[in-house]
Amino acid sequence: MQGPKSGNITWQQAGVTRTERERARGHRGATLWLTGLPGSGKTTIATRLEKALLGRGCVAYVLDGDNLRHGLSRDLGFAPVDRRENIRRIGEVAKLFTDAGVLVLCAFVSPYRVDREELRENMVRGDFVEIHVKASLATCEERDPKGLYRKARAGGIADMTGIGSPYEPPEHPELQLDTEAETADECVEQALGFLERTGYISPRSAG
Amino acid sequence: MQGPKSGNITWQQAGVTRTERERARGHRGATLWLTGLPGSGKTTIATRLEKALLGRGCVAYVLDGDNLRHGLSRDLGFAPVDRRENIRRIGEVAKLFTDAGVLVLCAFVSPYRVDREELRENMVRGDFVEIHVKASLATCEERDPKGLYRKARAGGIADMTGIGSPYEPPEHPELQLDTEAETADECVEQALGFLERTGYISPRSAG
Repeated sequence: MQGPKSGNITWQQAGVTRTERERARGHRGATLWLTGLPGSGKTTIATRLEKALLGRGCVAYVLDGDNLRHGLSRDLGFAPVDRRENIRRIGEVAKLFTDAGVLVLCAFVSPYRVDREELRENMVRGDFVEIHVKASLATCEERDPKGLYRKARAGGIADMTGIGSPYEPPEHPELQLDTEAETADECVEQALGFLERTGYISPRSAG
Repeated sequence: MQGPKSGNITWQQAGVTRTERERARGHRGATLWLTGLPGSGKTTIATRLEKALLGRGCVAYVLDGDNLRHGLSRDLGFAPVDRRENIRRIGEVAKLFTDAGVLVLCAFVSPYRVDREELRENMVRGDFVEIHVKASLATCEERDPKGLYRKARAGGIADMTGIGSPYEPPEHPELQLDTEAETADECVEQALGFLERTGYISPRSAG
């Protein structure tokens, strides 16, 4: 029925290892998890950091509410159990991207410490990098890029983080970016410096 | 409260487009969906194709049961409704990788035409490439790399595809790889030729 070509030896697997992928990419894979109040600047920093990483030949990608809620988490609502499942799925997707040797930038409010600790524990040590995007509630409310704070103050969003629901800042994040003290571009430079110092990416070559 | 640095202008988004990502990667993002009977050679071809693509400087990654069932689909069983949700989630993850400019190789039996058509319809035209990994049931059963056929024949797996449950081969796949007629490496060469001809990757430079 079958010739030697379809014998078992030919069909053994020879998978690519993560190390081989990372060597080929020229940088490590990692999940850079940006947490912070709505309006703190997570998505702005994530998208600019992706651009900067792209310019250095790194493979990076932003996961945020826009590309998750309409797809993978389409079946989930905003009840606590759904929010946790949403974060769990995002963590699993981030883990796959990390294994693929990608620097995946996750921009989610993710207000609870316990959820973020679960994400960290689900990954290999060093793969989960918690970045606190910090700004005071007053500043975030003044920026209010999506008009969510106004809506919440008017009673339209009961469990808005910062208003009706708490935000638990990280206690020991790998990196903190203060978006009141620095511009978005300065924050991106800080993040790049951190990634260089810690060996996730190679230092920019001179010239 | 806030200086000009945290003003709205600084915090506008400037996202990286998929086209920019693809230009940086030097190839298109796409979902290469390998469907076929258990034992037909999907994972073998996927892993070797990833290796070959890596060798050409492409960003590729294999999604298969091993890295999905223990993570993202951990909460799902094997009932029909769970199987469909599993395939849906894989499709959404593949879509994210494709958007990230990655050539994502999905190796799943995915026996039903309707499921594969839904995956295709959920993606931009040209992003979903259906690859039929073809081998007769007799050959797959003889290879039986995971001992699943033996177990099914002994009554241990009620709905084993090919035995207790049908496999619906694609009617118009973008590519068919016959693993009875060709070696795994020949199949990989065929897939690379296809990806070159159709412009997903650049032709190999001479020398």
